[in-house]
Amino acid sequence: MKAAQTSPTHNIQIEDPFWSDYIRLVREVMVPYQWEALNDRVQDAEPSHAIRNFKIAAGLEAGEFHGMVFQDSDVAKWLEAAAYLLETRRDSALEEIADGVIDIVVGAQREDGYLNTYFTLKEPGKEWSNLAECHELYCAGHFIEAGTAYFRATGKRKLLDAVSRFADYIDSVFGREPGKLHGYDGHQEIELALVKLYRTTGNEKYLNLSRFFLDQRGTMPHYFEEEWEKRGRTVHFPQLSMVHDHSYSQSYLPVREQMDAEGHAVRLVYMCTAMADIAAETGDAQMLSACKKLWDSITGKRMYITGSIGSMEQGESFSADYDLPGDLAYAETCASVGLMFFARRMLKLHRSSRYADVMERALYNTVIGGMSLDGTRFFYVNPLEVYPDVIGKNKNYDHIKAERQGWFSCACCPPNVARLLASLGEYIFTLQDDALYVELYIGARTRVELGGQMVDVELHSDYVSEGKVRLVVNPERNGEFTLALRMPEWTDRVDILAGGETESVTCAGEDGYIRLTRKWHPGDTVELTFSMPVRRMKSHPLVRQTYSKVALQRGPFVYCLEEADNGKRLYQLRLKEDGEYTLGEEEEFPKGVKTLQTAGYRVSSEGKWTNRLYQSDTGYVCEPVDLKLIPYFAWANRGIGEMSVWIFEDTRLDPTEKILSP
Amino acid sequence: MKAAQTSPTHNIQIEDPFWSDYIRLVREVMVPYQWEALNDRVQDAEPSHAIRNFKIAAGLEAGEFHGMVFQDSDVAKWLEAAAYLLETRRDSALEEIADGVIDIVVGAQREDGYLNTYFTLKEPGKEWSNLAECHELYCAGHFIEAGTAYFRATGKRKLLDAVSRFADYIDSVFGREPGKLHGYDGHQEIELALVKLYRTTGNEKYLNLSRFFLDQRGTMPHYFEEEWEKRGRTVHFPQLSMVHDHSYSQSYLPVREQMDAEGHAVRLVYMCTAMADIAAETGDAQMLSACKKLWDSITGKRMYITGSIGSMEQGESFSADYDLPGDLAYAETCASVGLMFFARRMLKLHRSSRYADVMERALYNTVIGGMSLDGTRFFYVNPLEVYPDVIGKNKNYDHIKAERQGWFSCACCPPNVARLLASLGEYIFTLQDDALYVELYIGARTRVELGGQMVDVELHSDYVSEGKVRLVVNPERNGEFTLALRMPEWTDRVDILAGGETESVTCAGEDGYIRLTRKWHPGDTVELTFSMPVRRMKSHPLVRQTYSKVALQRGPFVYCLEEADNGKRLYQLRLKEDGEYTLGEEEEFPKGVKTLQTAGYRVSSEGKWTNRLYQSDTGYVCEPVDLKLIPYFAWANRGIGEMSVWIFEDTRLDPTEKILSP
Repeated sequence: MKAAQTSPTHNIQIEDPFWSDYIRLVREVMVPYQWEALNDRVQDAEPSHAIRNFKIAAGLEAGEFHGMVFQDSDVAKWLEAAAYLLETRRDSALEEIADGVIDIVVGAQREDGYLNTYFTLKEPGKEWSNLAECHELYCAGHFIEAGTAYFRATGKRKLLDAVSRFADYIDSVFGREPGKLHGYDGHQEIELALVKLYRTTGNEKYLNLSRFFLDQRGTMPHYFEEEWEKRGRTVHFPQLSMVHDHSYSQSYLPVREQMDAEGHAVRLVYMCTAMADIAAETGDAQMLSACKKLWDSITGKRMYITGSIGSMEQGESFSADYDLPGDLAYAETCASVGLMFFARRMLKLHRSSRYADVMERALYNTVIGGMSLDGTRFFYVNPLEVYPDVIGKNKNYDHIKAERQGWFSCACCPPNVARLLASLGEYIFTLQDDALYVELYIGARTRVELGGQMVDVELHSDYVSEGKVRLVVNPERNGEFTLALRMPEWTDRVDILAGGETESVTCAGEDGYIRLTRKWHPGDTVELTFSMPVRRMKSHPLVRQTYSKVALQRGPFVYCLEEADNGKRLYQLRLKEDGEYTLGEEEEFPKGVKTLQTAGYRVSSEGKWTNRLYQSDTGYVCEPVDLKLIPYFAWANRGIGEMSVWIFEDTRLDPTEKILSP
Repeated sequence: MKAAQTSPTHNIQIEDPFWSDYIRLVREVMVPYQWEALNDRVQDAEPSHAIRNFKIAAGLEAGEFHGMVFQDSDVAKWLEAAAYLLETRRDSALEEIADGVIDIVVGAQREDGYLNTYFTLKEPGKEWSNLAECHELYCAGHFIEAGTAYFRATGKRKLLDAVSRFADYIDSVFGREPGKLHGYDGHQEIELALVKLYRTTGNEKYLNLSRFFLDQRGTMPHYFEEEWEKRGRTVHFPQLSMVHDHSYSQSYLPVREQMDAEGHAVRLVYMCTAMADIAAETGDAQMLSACKKLWDSITGKRMYITGSIGSMEQGESFSADYDLPGDLAYAETCASVGLMFFARRMLKLHRSSRYADVMERALYNTVIGGMSLDGTRFFYVNPLEVYPDVIGKNKNYDHIKAERQGWFSCACCPPNVARLLASLGEYIFTLQDDALYVELYIGARTRVELGGQMVDVELHSDYVSEGKVRLVVNPERNGEFTLALRMPEWTDRVDILAGGETESVTCAGEDGYIRLTRKWHPGDTVELTFSMPVRRMKSHPLVRQTYSKVALQRGPFVYCLEEADNGKRLYQLRLKEDGEYTLGEEEEFPKGVKTLQTAGYRVSSEGKWTNRLYQSDTGYVCEPVDLKLIPYFAWANRGIGEMSVWIFEDTRLDPTEKILSP
């Protein structure tokens, strides 16, 4: 049951016409911008105070704690992103800043290993008294992730040693033994982080501690209720019900018994990531089975077409099967980042291309849609339909923003996107059973061990614009091994040119991969051309919110209508059922990213409707219009305006003249 | 400018195959049931404590105040309903109970005239310190309405004198003069009540006080902010923002300058009712103009097809023009009752049948839909689409109930429906300019002055089931006058049989009435047969929530699909565009109320969709099914289940076989 461990994820250089610019943005704009933000030097953004909290806790400055109870985690996530950047390219200026931050952070660590500026500065003595709400283990997890990443990138042990000391301390506080706390964090994160620490240090204590936290979750009597009684029934977030709503924190059942995606979406996917890690490390079949069930629930019943999750603002949560309102969606950026974490783990546990399909869907739509094209502004919430004129008037839309924001008082998303993009190389390939699986067709170079020798692999990609990919294989000598190429769910044909011959493949293996097993020679190339039609997507017949509507998708991109191109009242636009689509490009968008133009109709607000809200025996006056659609990720980069992914289809409109449709 | 005053509303006996049963329910079930509820004797309902509050305040019992700050108003509304019942039929048992209540209520009145058990028992000394939130004048208004109604019904002055004393006291506290309070109530109600008191007593002081409250509203500096500062910034409802959200209470602008329906829906229509009253009494042209604008905004842009208003739960409020989500609607029963109040006033100010059309729409759909067919259970919120399986899971639906409740902790709606139905006679006719206008075709008898003599008029109605009405006119002698018959908006033809001749009329006068002016003889009859087709209703093209959907209406009834007849997943049902409709009846429903049966389709959840949420190049498997629709008002009387007013239309389905629609 133990899954293969080797992964070629730590030695990858991305060189891609679409993604290189994103990596550059992370390096040149996002990480520096976020550094300024963490230091309260961004003018139009709410002050973070995160670095100051550490300086104060380290005795370097005077002052008080400010920010959310989990403010520390922003610093950790920034450090982790910086580490990934350093791993792909050393940068002494960035490393110097990071080393400086690490000095401050470690300076704020207590003698016994404890590290958390909120409790150190604001509630000393109350450590571990409110796991349900106060995110101590969550913050610890992020520092552990940062510590392992920074060690791998630079070989420097200072932060790794500090977080190991912290983990040792946590291990002394939590556990099954009498006298120890039997609890677990309200917000899952430390579980997956401890697996990373185990993999980095080889110390099984950390793996066992991770499993302990997973095993404890959802057991009775309920820990959050017990600690609440013990601390005198105080709550940190009185407007929420983190203590008593056990679904919210996925503590309503032991994790192995959970079948449905419930509660806070980010917490669930972080938990699932750790569950998959534990299944991989320990061969825990029940854990794997729960992972599969939760995966099916999330992606088969509760995921938006843009790869986002969380149908409602209340609790930033899942709601019910097939309940996917596009205009009210929460669809947090972080949740799609976490869904990618989970998907990547599942790839190795259960070979099926659908994990990579979802990873791609989340990445190309919601994750990069969460940031502006210039890398300075961010969405937390990613609705599929926005009417700015109604926001502020209908308070159900109070969580929806029509433009990206500079920084958030709860700033989880921007650094999460940064660390995801900075580590994007980890998502491209999987090395398993002497085969190199290509999961995402992102241009990159790597060196892996295949067929008993080292092989250099280059992936040249024109995937985003044309669906074309070229792989160059350079084994040290001729040798047999397998390249396994994912057949993306959005295509029905790929032309494969290899060894001078072209073959059209319309059906991949049962697991969704096309396997090329042969004796490879140095310099062998494989060229793939994926058929990339514009697809009219429908939702499952149990999704009541998208009936009579279609969404367009081409390649990995889901498209949307935006006011900038189509004017106001997007709900009045109709697609022709048999419309032709012309590809175009938009100056403001990344090169190669295609827009779509097609003929459609606009329902007019004119006609016999003056002062009448409801009428019979009449229809709508329609007129032909040209429609332009853009990839969803690129919306809200050209001013505030309406946006809609799902578009009404209506074939009862006569294109030749203005008509009253009955 | 002064509108006609005479109204034949106080001498009407309803005798109608549909409505008589409702009046009977009010008399035999609702008013007695509500009496039990007010006395905390209903087992499955939250205790009201309303009568006990008065007993305690009157010194008859010991105890403390319990309930909402406006709990008193439930007693007042019950008394008002009882008065209307007594007006149409004396009933010594009911009158004895009412006299007893009046004794208790008057016993709770202070020496100076003040009457409010909340402040008397719970916050003595803080009277008038929080008009924004504490509903003192609102409760006063309801007692004034009860006092005038009870005097009219019984000739007994005790309550009328008490509320007059209270109004005199209020007049001594509020006014423009220095030393008086310049405020007005957060919840409009006293304004319309004072006009009733003026009309009952002839004392202009009350009319002027009503106008003063209207004139003060929305002036600057803002009274609610000032009193909030003065009382030390305390608030009664911390989770709401009644003090600072001036739109909520329609105090964001002087009332004559308001153009859009904003804020709490009930407050707006109560305010508009008083504005129309003041316009009628004083000829205030600006006031009338504001009434027309607000009417157009409410009914032309912000009203559901069921005659309900208030698109969102937050603030029980209007949201934006054409923003009418059926599943999230607030659509409070009280707001439709208030809309009828407003409509009735407008009928006399601006002769147009659309006011009666809206009155009818509200009455036949939301108002009676607010109660169960047995008169014991009530909806507060009246959504147009309900999926019980999602309630509780998607918290946006937390305000939606799938079944009517016994009584409410905030019990405004049930007694409001009771007093409306008990006074339904007031809505049938308008007497104006020597013409008798028939506004609602409800079977009734009345005696009015027309053409200089008294005329008995009988209206025999088979309106609900067949669209048939017969009027019998009995002047004391032959004489000329006018019968003006409303042409309902839902018909395109009426056959009129009068004087032995039948005439088909397809177009009424510009104001929507068909005028029969002639010399009438004793016993003359007019028979009307309204064409009553099943109409496929569409919404205005700016309503984005109902695109691709139709609602069915026949006569005054809007129809809906219900799970009891059509199974689960109503969103999968489709109407045929050219479907025939068969009328039926349902045993549980009132006699004469028609159900509709028609051929349609059901989209299947089967097909190639297993575990796939989104697909292209495929459609839905459909199969022909019989659909049954029932009048909206009758839903939720046969168990908990789904309900939907708006139904997808889809003509691309082939009825002859199961197909995959593309």
